Amino acid sequence: MSRLAPLSGFPEWSPSERIVEAFVLDTLRDVFALHGFGEIETRAVEPLDRLGGEAEASKAVYMLRRRGGEKFEFGLHFDLTVPFARYVEERQGQLQFPFRRFQIQKVWRGERPQEGRFREFYQADIDVVARENLPAHLEAEVAVVMARALAALPLPAARMRMNDRRLVEGFYRGVGIEGVAAALRSVDKLGKIGPDGVAKELEGQRVSDDAATAILELAKIQSPDSSFREAVLDLWETTPTHGDERAQAVLGEGLNALVALIDSVNAAVPGTAMADLSIARGLDYYTGAVYETTLDGHEDLGSICSGGRYDSLVAGGGFPGVGMSIGVSRLVSRLVSRELLVATRSVPSAVLVAVIDEANRPLSDSIAARLRARGIACEVSPTAAKFGKQIQYADRRGIPYVWFPGDGEDGEVGVGQVKDIRSGDQVPADADAWMPPADDLRPRVVRG
Amino acid sequence: MSRLAPLSGFPEWSPSERIVEAFVLDTLRDVFALHGFGEIETRAVEPLDRLGGEAEASKAVYMLRRRGGEKFEFGLHFDLTVPFARYVEERQGQLQFPFRRFQIQKVWRGERPQEGRFREFYQADIDVVARENLPAHLEAEVAVVMARALAALPLPAARMRMNDRRLVEGFYRGVGIEGVAAALRSVDKLGKIGPDGVAKELEGQRVSDDAATAILELAKIQSPDSSFREAVLDLWETTPTHGDERAQAVLGEGLNALVALIDSVNAAVPGTAMADLSIARGLDYYTGAVYETTLDGHEDLGSICSGGRYDSLVAGGGFPGVGMSIGVSRLVSRLVSRELLVATRSVPSAVLVAVIDEANRPLSDSIAARLRARGIACEVSPTAAKFGKQIQYADRRGIPYVWFPGDGEDGEVGVGQVKDIRSGDQVPADADAWMPPADDLRPRVVRG
Repeated sequence: MSRLAPLSGFPEWSPSERIVEAFVLDTLRDVFALHGFGEIETRAVEPLDRLGGEAEASKAVYMLRRRGGEKFEFGLHFDLTVPFARYVEERQGQLQFPFRRFQIQKVWRGERPQEGRFREFYQADIDVVARENLPAHLEAEVAVVMARALAALPLPAARMRMNDRRLVEGFYRGVGIEGVAAALRSVDKLGKIGPDGVAKELEGQRVSDDAATAILELAKIQSPDSSFREAVLDLWETTPTHGDERAQAVLGEGLNALVALIDSVNAAVPGTAMADLSIARGLDYYTGAVYETTLDGHEDLGSICSGGRYDSLVAGGGFPGVGMSIGVSRLVSRLVSRELLVATRSVPSAVLVAVIDEANRPLSDSIAARLRARGIACEVSPTAAKFGKQIQYADRRGIPYVWFPGDGEDGEVGVGQVKDIRSGDQVPADADAWMPPADDLRPRVVRG
Repeated sequence: MSRLAPLSGFPEWSPSERIVEAFVLDTLRDVFALHGFGEIETRAVEPLDRLGGEAEASKAVYMLRRRGGEKFEFGLHFDLTVPFARYVEERQGQLQFPFRRFQIQKVWRGERPQEGRFREFYQADIDVVARENLPAHLEAEVAVVMARALAALPLPAARMRMNDRRLVEGFYRGVGIEGVAAALRSVDKLGKIGPDGVAKELEGQRVSDDAATAILELAKIQSPDSSFREAVLDLWETTPTHGDERAQAVLGEGLNALVALIDSVNAAVPGTAMADLSIARGLDYYTGAVYETTLDGHEDLGSICSGGRYDSLVAGGGFPGVGMSIGVSRLVSRLVSRELLVATRSVPSAVLVAVIDEANRPLSDSIAARLRARGIACEVSPTAAKFGKQIQYADRRGIPYVWFPGDGEDGEVGVGQVKDIRSGDQVPADADAWMPPADDLRPRVVRG
């Protein structure tokens, strides 16, 4: 039997850490639903040929074969976009468009694990997909929904960094770059390999020095409002070539769209959106807004919520959409490892109902049933040990209250005593009426 | 690209079917937590050598290899017991015992798919595991929790069929059967191959005709109360051999335990438990109570909730426990295919906020924000088409209310008109005060 050891890249949480994760997932679900996103789940596997494509992740697909089987049948999905595209394509006749969906599932990537990068992790995606035309205001809407979802968690402030692919494409073409996609993928590595590394890669792509300098300057432009527009236009004026009219038109389109996007998101969730023209996103399919999100003070974690607008969700064309994805496990891993969020206890039970002796266990069961009928989570002591031992048991489990059944002499079997084992306070109580303070009812998740 | 077709055995639900599934999962979660079970999740993969063992399912393990990789690294778990055992073994120093956990995750089995049998499906498990001694009352408790969980769903009545391994073992040994485990596995197929098929298998195991007859008679015994005890003792008296004293003692132990179990479960959840001595369960590791559960009128679906007591969760011994597992996908598949449960609508939104014209979209956004602040799920119309078109859009999506913003003349931008598009009723409303009827607030799940 293989030795017992955690598998690198496959995180598992303790019961109290799982409470934090479940709280995060439930909060996201609630906010998504409040904004009219319906939930779907897709199977974990896709045919292998659908898991190809340009994404880095496709190299890291886990392929599946049955024990004793002869061929690989499927692969595990590496994101939720590929299965979502297939789901929409399959059901296009039944779905109503624009189709608004959220999807929260685990995905798998056989990459080298490192901090914040897992082989199995939860993603939480929202997308809006139209049949033909996708109005630009939906690019603001998905960002607003995600900003509100993150704001619903007691986290450091989230900063959404935005760019627009048309802005980048117009500018790149304008300064004479032909391989826009390749140049973009290099700029996407700016954080990892620095400007010199990017310049070297661009040289390899036969990008001129002037053009490389210009696009590295472009990537420096940031603003918390629409003032980036001036900076881009100034840079554009000083570049040696200005490109053709088409490039300039595309640049203008992207600039206007990004101004409108930033203004619109900040109007809804003040202080959240900023222009950051270094945001490239590695995937070719984006055609409008692109987003990344960092948590203040945790920029080293990288983006926890990314996405963009695409012209066509499915291979055959059509179905333009916009979506964003939260890397839930990356986020939760930071939250629990730094104890930024903690559960107030590790068990659901608010009350341990003590047992006088085994003959009286049904009395304790009946008290527990009365408490549960009013939404109070509880458990009955597993043994009828001395009360001191039963209190110790509650204490070890982190259960705040112990209920001592009365003798039922006055015929009211539900009447007994309840002890707050933290303070030692003990009061008479009726199982059909007593409520713990709201803070004790269920484990809560609070800032650590 | 592979053709678009559902993969047999990998169920996917429509958005409104997913609402039914999520309702089932949320209900189970709530009931488990109310009874003091904490949630854990484990990784989807285990080392291959841990996925062996005697279970049928182990033959159907999906093995994983990275694209471009050279060896199989892991397999997907085929149940939640194997990973739970590993979790407990790994964390025995940190967990408090008896450890009460629930776990709701997908599992995978590369079996031939058939109705109610999937290759990817949700299981919902509860277990209580002790370090050394597991009191017998916990065998009743897990059954009661599962009965309450099923009763919390608007389903046909669930019938829990119970047996006890000691009863079976004592009886089998008493009538002279040495290979108890093999005989048990044959009896477990009674529903599939019938008494003649079982008799033939027993013959192959060199079980005497008399013994085979006796254990097939035993398997016929059923009772909704403790009266099965008499029937077993009568049968025992008429069998040709009565075995040694030890066999008789084990039989007596099992009989008493099963009587106590049935009585105790029926006291808590009347009419749920019955003795059914044909219940065998294929797995060798059970040592006490074994359970299966059928839904009235849906016996053809097989058991939707099964489990039992085991002496040792981990390979090295120790950690006796008792657990049950609901086959959630099997259940949900029946519920949605027969429309036993249906969602009142397929989208979360209760309200579509209409848009007067694009210039006034921020007004509609602000109305939506006010509604959401009070927990009303809504969405803003994607286009500023004529109101008639916007109403049509809501109708197609199944959104019951459309909100028409007022002109804000009196300075109260949240005041407008809200129309119930089912009745056509339209009334003035304030976005800071109006509430839909409780039945319309969120999609509900009701009997079909």
